[in-house]
Amino acid sequence: MSDMTGPDFSRNGGLLPAVAQDASTREVLMLAYMNEEAYAETVRTGRAVYYSRSRQRLWRKGEESGHQQQVQAIFVDCDADTILLLVEQVGAACHEGYKSCFFRQVVDGALVVTATQLKDPREIYNQESSS
Amino acid sequence: MSDMTGPDFSRNGGLLPAVAQDASTREVLMLAYMNEEAYAETVRTGRAVYYSRSRQRLWRKGEESGHQQQVQAIFVDCDADTILLLVEQVGAACHEGYKSCFFRQVVDGALVVTATQLKDPREIYNQESSS
Repeated sequence: MSDMTGPDFSRNGGLLPAVAQDASTREVLMLAYMNEEAYAETVRTGRAVYYSRSRQRLWRKGEESGHQQQVQAIFVDCDADTILLLVEQVGAACHEGYKSCFFRQVVDGALVVTATQLKDPREIYNQESSS
Repeated sequence: MSDMTGPDFSRNGGLLPAVAQDASTREVLMLAYMNEEAYAETVRTGRAVYYSRSRQRLWRKGEESGHQQQVQAIFVDCDADTILLLVEQVGAACHEGYKSCFFRQVVDGALVVTATQLKDPREIYNQESSS
């Protein structure tokens, strides 16, 4: 791997999972996917760009909601097939109005909301999905 | 989603990405995958169990290396197709001997090691892979 310069998009059918983590609080905000084009634009612009599997197109995070992610640092894992972004999150990462998409904890076989809703989802016009 | 009780294994072909995060330091340690059986055993035993895509079988994290993950909490994302584990990591999460698999940062188009190697990989007998 010594000649690697970034994620290996020859893996996983060219679509790699990307984890976004808040650079300040270290909260894990969301997981989405990047293809090579999304990754290149992320590096070039300093804003997180994903590939939406449901819409089958680039998804510039916050393009409609305004909830952008300014990328502070990019890491790859040992296999170079997962990306970790340290980001500064504007507003809420989740289209349901929570800072993080992981706002529900599994407790005794039930899902319990453990976070505070920052925004009314009805006010987030673009119903962004991490899928 | 109000009747959901956990991850939705009808999605993603039954194989969901699972992010392991250090419960104390909030460092993101690794990303691997879980099928329903791996998830059920994780919940039952309190130790992280993944599904190895390369070996096509359950992968009880640390089964050979001893580098187990004690699970403190489990979260699911808004789509219930990604799992987040808060864990207490024994030793190194990465088979290359680093605490986290994300030990390399992308800096100006090159991969730079930014973490300290805790273990000699040659001493980790099971060359675990997150794939």
